[in-house]
Amino acid sequence: MPSISNKGNSMPQSPIRKLVPYAEAAKKNGTKVYHLNIGQPDIKTPQVALDAVKNNSIEVLSYARSEGSEIYRTKLANYYEKNDINVTANNIIATTGGSEALLFTIGSITDPGDEIIIPEPFYANYNGFSTASGVKVVPVISKIENNFALPAIEDFEKLITSKTKAILICNPGNPTGYLYSKEELEKLKQIVVKHDLFLIADEVYREFTYDGEKHNSVMSLDGLDQHTIMIDSVSKRYSMCGARIGCIVSRNEEFINTALKFAQARLSPPTYALLASEAALDTPQSYFDEVIEEYQERRNILISELQKIEGVRVANPKGAFYCIAELPVENSEDFAQWILEKFHHNNETLMVAPAGGFYSTKGEGLNQVRIAYVLNKEDLTRCVEILKVALEQYNNQ
Amino acid sequence: MPSISNKGNSMPQSPIRKLVPYAEAAKKNGTKVYHLNIGQPDIKTPQVALDAVKNNSIEVLSYARSEGSEIYRTKLANYYEKNDINVTANNIIATTGGSEALLFTIGSITDPGDEIIIPEPFYANYNGFSTASGVKVVPVISKIENNFALPAIEDFEKLITSKTKAILICNPGNPTGYLYSKEELEKLKQIVVKHDLFLIADEVYREFTYDGEKHNSVMSLDGLDQHTIMIDSVSKRYSMCGARIGCIVSRNEEFINTALKFAQARLSPPTYALLASEAALDTPQSYFDEVIEEYQERRNILISELQKIEGVRVANPKGAFYCIAELPVENSEDFAQWILEKFHHNNETLMVAPAGGFYSTKGEGLNQVRIAYVLNKEDLTRCVEILKVALEQYNNQ
Repeated sequence: MPSISNKGNSMPQSPIRKLVPYAEAAKKNGTKVYHLNIGQPDIKTPQVALDAVKNNSIEVLSYARSEGSEIYRTKLANYYEKNDINVTANNIIATTGGSEALLFTIGSITDPGDEIIIPEPFYANYNGFSTASGVKVVPVISKIENNFALPAIEDFEKLITSKTKAILICNPGNPTGYLYSKEELEKLKQIVVKHDLFLIADEVYREFTYDGEKHNSVMSLDGLDQHTIMIDSVSKRYSMCGARIGCIVSRNEEFINTALKFAQARLSPPTYALLASEAALDTPQSYFDEVIEEYQERRNILISELQKIEGVRVANPKGAFYCIAELPVENSEDFAQWILEKFHHNNETLMVAPAGGFYSTKGEGLNQVRIAYVLNKEDLTRCVEILKVALEQYNNQ
Repeated sequence: MPSISNKGNSMPQSPIRKLVPYAEAAKKNGTKVYHLNIGQPDIKTPQVALDAVKNNSIEVLSYARSEGSEIYRTKLANYYEKNDINVTANNIIATTGGSEALLFTIGSITDPGDEIIIPEPFYANYNGFSTASGVKVVPVISKIENNFALPAIEDFEKLITSKTKAILICNPGNPTGYLYSKEELEKLKQIVVKHDLFLIADEVYREFTYDGEKHNSVMSLDGLDQHTIMIDSVSKRYSMCGARIGCIVSRNEEFINTALKFAQARLSPPTYALLASEAALDTPQSYFDEVIEEYQERRNILISELQKIEGVRVANPKGAFYCIAELPVENSEDFAQWILEKFHHNNETLMVAPAGGFYSTKGEGLNQVRIAYVLNKEDLTRCVEILKVALEQYNNQ
């Protein structure tokens, strides 16, 4: 019998997957399960994007251009310009989700055995894309007591070897909600220039910043054109996770030409989704104003309610729609399973993501969970209540 | 300045890409360019699939399940059953095109440095997916004088090393149009069983067989459940290249579980395209009857007209919608560029794919081109006329 490869065996499983059967069993038993575990917003997709697909006049569903149409990339460049990111259509390759953008990026700049430094906790699928490319993720830890701010330059420099090819950040951060300041980005600039590294920034949550804070893109850093690569996606911006349209943005021509070869090998991003994504660029500002206000209110409620629970520590997120909460438990994976398997409060329970899966360093984050505030305020309040009762029962077993 | 990886530098460029600027220049000069170079059919997508997307009632464009919904995979399994392929929903993972199905398959069964044997000429992007995974393609040559039949068992066995993980075939073949017989598949079975290899079959052209010939799937081979992996796609079957929905089919549970981890890392196939693909499974048989008849007529015209040109040799394809033609030129790449750059016949010219790009062995296929019969009969007749005049002029320079 032919065998699976080492790479195949090493592919990580999502930290949430193990919990899925317990959630399904709970639902079968008539328990309502609130999903705080995934970044699938409940927010409506902009009507203009939905309409573009409903009113399409396609008769032959043909391949799109591998890099996305000139028109789409030009419109996208205009959108970036409004966000202080000055790029042209030629700096952009449309991809099948931010996922593919990361895969092409890693493929273009690394060989098997190379290393990428990522502040942890980080989006768990960075592990998957790295493993698929034979690349080693080298974590540099950021701490809940500092709100998950950028680790010190020295912490990065200690980890840089001849194999290091890039530093990858997510800004605003999934799972931390942390928003890097201009000063923090300038520090990263120093490191990547000094050590000749790429600086990859996953900026898919750009729009989601709170308390009047402004997002700073790595693309706005001066003199870093050859180093910076931005990963983007329509998934969160327009609540279009199922479109699967993302993009790579860089002013490094050699890099873009290389990534384009990966894009050409897979022929084309999905055509219907490109239609939706192009139309979504006409979404009125009022849509974002409402959405951001909604998320900010949700965050306020979630954080203030969580802080009322004894033994819970929570970082105050300034962006995205996640927070990491430290719980008064030893093992949040066990707790997350327990609330699905053995607990309910008035026939309701919830699913959270144990944070261990967002750390690469073994043993870190074991008492933390990631909570996505993708439910309405009433449900969120209810969820924190359930969590409180669950923690009491769990700790009094 | 940080540098591109060896992998990035090794990514092959499509053999057609170099010609694109010449085709664009010709069009700018007012010359009509017939595209025989790509597998983008002109055939209408089934109405039932188009309607499913136009009439969708999506309000939040959410992620689909990583492996595709249970309903979709069950419907798909029913379709396969009608094609003598007995599988269940659990044997199927929906992917973003056949491209991603190949990428996940290669990732699951190979490590960098491993080898996959592929009869050449083969679909050029197999090179891209292999390079992206650090895998070496080992070609075994099939010959135009044998209509590109399966090479002898001995030819395969000579190439098998401890690094060999799989044999990959395309059936019916792109670019050859060759349809493997049951006997040929049985030969492959012997080899993969003896040497413990995976047998990967790209069967995306399953429907397109002519002269009453029947397609045989590797999934129908007895006793090969642990070895066979089928790659499929809606792109050609329903003229839905832009959907980007494919799938992996295998009864090897360990393999499917491994491929699923790759699928989970990229979250989801495109949701709109899944809607279209699910609906497409209700396409009436009359659609296929008409399409197959159309392609068969096109093939008949194309082949018989090509055979009338002195010095042209053409294999008679029994499936797919391509043929490889040997031209009375030394270098088909030069010729393909010339007809775009320096030639027109009554303000018309054509674009073909030089076949060198479909061979891995240097120097093979240099006088061959791939012609896709994806244009209507009148245009095809016109194209062969143009080709004839072009060959005369080219050879009289």
